[in-house]
Amino acid sequence: MTDKKILLQEKDIPTQWYNLMADLPTPLRPPLHPGTHQPLTPQELAPLFPEALIKQEMSADRWIDIPDEVREVYRLWRPSPLIRASRLEKALDTPAEIWFKWEGVSPAGSHKPNSAVPQAYYNAKEGVRRLTTETGAGQWGSSLAFACAQFGLKCTIYMVRVSFNQKPYRASMMRTWGAEVFASPSDKTDSGRAVLAEDPETNGSLGIAISEAVEDAVKHADAHYALGSVLNHVLIHQSVVGLEARKQLELADRRPDVLVGCVGGGSNFAGFAFPFLPEKIRGQSKVRLVAVEPSACPTLTRGRLAYDFGDTAGLTPLIRMHTLGSHFIPPGFHAGGLRYHGMAPMVSAAVEQGLCETIAVEQLETFKAGMLFTRTEGIMPAPEANHAIRGAIIEAERCKREGHREVIVMNLSGHGHMDMSAYDAYLGGKLVDVHYDEQALALSLSHLPEVK
Amino acid sequence: MTDKKILLQEKDIPTQWYNLMADLPTPLRPPLHPGTHQPLTPQELAPLFPEALIKQEMSADRWIDIPDEVREVYRLWRPSPLIRASRLEKALDTPAEIWFKWEGVSPAGSHKPNSAVPQAYYNAKEGVRRLTTETGAGQWGSSLAFACAQFGLKCTIYMVRVSFNQKPYRASMMRTWGAEVFASPSDKTDSGRAVLAEDPETNGSLGIAISEAVEDAVKHADAHYALGSVLNHVLIHQSVVGLEARKQLELADRRPDVLVGCVGGGSNFAGFAFPFLPEKIRGQSKVRLVAVEPSACPTLTRGRLAYDFGDTAGLTPLIRMHTLGSHFIPPGFHAGGLRYHGMAPMVSAAVEQGLCETIAVEQLETFKAGMLFTRTEGIMPAPEANHAIRGAIIEAERCKREGHREVIVMNLSGHGHMDMSAYDAYLGGKLVDVHYDEQALALSLSHLPEVK
Repeated sequence: MTDKKILLQEKDIPTQWYNLMADLPTPLRPPLHPGTHQPLTPQELAPLFPEALIKQEMSADRWIDIPDEVREVYRLWRPSPLIRASRLEKALDTPAEIWFKWEGVSPAGSHKPNSAVPQAYYNAKEGVRRLTTETGAGQWGSSLAFACAQFGLKCTIYMVRVSFNQKPYRASMMRTWGAEVFASPSDKTDSGRAVLAEDPETNGSLGIAISEAVEDAVKHADAHYALGSVLNHVLIHQSVVGLEARKQLELADRRPDVLVGCVGGGSNFAGFAFPFLPEKIRGQSKVRLVAVEPSACPTLTRGRLAYDFGDTAGLTPLIRMHTLGSHFIPPGFHAGGLRYHGMAPMVSAAVEQGLCETIAVEQLETFKAGMLFTRTEGIMPAPEANHAIRGAIIEAERCKREGHREVIVMNLSGHGHMDMSAYDAYLGGKLVDVHYDEQALALSLSHLPEVK
Repeated sequence: MTDKKILLQEKDIPTQWYNLMADLPTPLRPPLHPGTHQPLTPQELAPLFPEALIKQEMSADRWIDIPDEVREVYRLWRPSPLIRASRLEKALDTPAEIWFKWEGVSPAGSHKPNSAVPQAYYNAKEGVRRLTTETGAGQWGSSLAFACAQFGLKCTIYMVRVSFNQKPYRASMMRTWGAEVFASPSDKTDSGRAVLAEDPETNGSLGIAISEAVEDAVKHADAHYALGSVLNHVLIHQSVVGLEARKQLELADRRPDVLVGCVGGGSNFAGFAFPFLPEKIRGQSKVRLVAVEPSACPTLTRGRLAYDFGDTAGLTPLIRMHTLGSHFIPPGFHAGGLRYHGMAPMVSAAVEQGLCETIAVEQLETFKAGMLFTRTEGIMPAPEANHAIRGAIIEAERCKREGHREVIVMNLSGHGHMDMSAYDAYLGGKLVDVHYDEQALALSLSHLPEVK
């Protein structure tokens, strides 16, 4: 038997993060001050982030050292395994190989701690005592709660209400690690109260929850803010995923043909796929990158590439990205981690510059894919990860039609143990495809901020 | 940095299971037919189990080959890691080393698939089409549902009602793998209906659920029964845990002083600890084995060593074990996997023959231990596993008092992702120590079957 899992040792945990900024053919346009529309200065970010993270956010260095204290916590679960989905291949009767990088082995159950840990570390090192954040499905909130517990920080989490109600045990997890958790919109902030006044029954959105967390951090001197995706430094931290996967594929003597990941804010996809881009940019590899998003929140496939706010209240800088408009509230589907109106600027740039393809898929087909995966490979994936599986299956079915033995590698970003109510709904025939309101999207896109 | 985790490769998955029967100083007394009280013949077990498992159940061979088809499924998660709980050590300020074998990495989240997979395999191989079983906390039921999905078998699960209500997502998991799940006592069986007639509000118990599953299997020709603990063949399958742990400790150049595990039916404890016994029996090692049980269901510390039924309705053979009496219904505490009136005969024998120590601990101290573990090591353990952690902490505190640098190794049998309601109750101050009824226990013990 050839090995099903490619395992690395702790010495193989990367010692440096990779930063695509150094290799991107056309550089990113800078984030702008929301009032002046001038490029943002590091000082203007200081109320939110520690100096080390601001430096990373603006860095064009290809490699950034990972502090020993961060690697020491990474060791609790890293390196994560790369696994051959041989039983899924068999069920699909495809000539393609399907591999998955399995990030669900982290304490919080997803890739999110890869950035939560360094964010908590740098904040603790610079004397911050509390972090505020938002969370959608709860993967990021759990991860930051876990990371804060490791470095003795307090943690305040605003959790999007639809997910708060769907997944009560996610909040329990966060509290078990010592965090306080509020359903967002909450009555704790001006931003939250304003939204509640307008629509007391709102599902909430990541954009609103970000506004609340940012407001909380700005108004309290003991606190900083932490974001779980979108920003450059988050994508940089996530590069440990792809750097390990590269090494594992080398050990397995495989060259990937297609890399598949789900995209919400973009961090798991970028962390997994970007470390494979330098060779592609240099023309030494033809690897295809496929970003899979929910058709109910189709940022990359239906959004506009423009400067927009990262949050609903307009408290964040303006960043150039694919966006559905910062007031767009997606319908309440189960992959809460993908319910974001915007996209990481680096992912948007990769798409714009032809380095990356995009597809949108419906909720039901993703759960069907997740069920097949669960019954063949045993692992029960998060609804977000089911999008990656669906994308990989689409590629594997193409390979079958074309008779190609390609190597498909996906990032399985997290487990679905806290998402059993969604599986219940699917099994009970109660899960349906959900759609956004076309008029609301058009309205939202017509209100994008005007930037010269 | 020395490694935190000792990882093995797939080639290190054991090729043979270990059977303590070959080394036990005094052999086990045989199971008896419930009617005749004569030693059971293999034929009498045939309505319940496939031939291969009956042979294992009665085997005194030291080593039993693991079929390739079983190792092929083990590879989905095995070998499991052995991890140094360095952050817990630091929090306890103990000179002892604490290591844990981490079985929560399996698809179902515990050690249980180690036996579910071979049980499903042997049944499928002999043409059985459906397996029936009971489950307490749900770890075993999930595991058998997963294993049946791997070998194309149907699966019917009777889940103890108190756990069914406490942990709805466990049943969702089982259904996601394709099983059907009933709260026990159910109206599907004579045994279940009889209990419901007497006490419609009963919490249920593993003893009752076993009666229902056995009855279902006996009455339907397509079905066999599968048990998740207690029986010799189950303990034999679980030996992969201890065999791997031995190898990992050798790689780390450590000799264990104390091995700690929780006990319900006894399978995770035995699987982990028994492979270390041959050297102890031969006088070449002084390793101590400590079995930790809940004081609310104190089979080893307060039960009697006698012949008794494995179930409540008296459908199973009589087996000689520590028992609280087959009509004893433990109070509804959260470690549902430990709510069993009996004990594996091999564990009972190991205790009787002085190879193993026993302690009983209260619910609150186990959750306090689990919280400390979660906040230091990141992993959120199952309530059952919290008993092992509490046991390891007691040993580590003793080492601190005595100034001993001992090596404590525990089996962390599963994760607590489906047990968040219990952590919620603990965090909310609503969790209390629960106690059994002394009079009910005395009554139960006075009704043990009389065997010459």
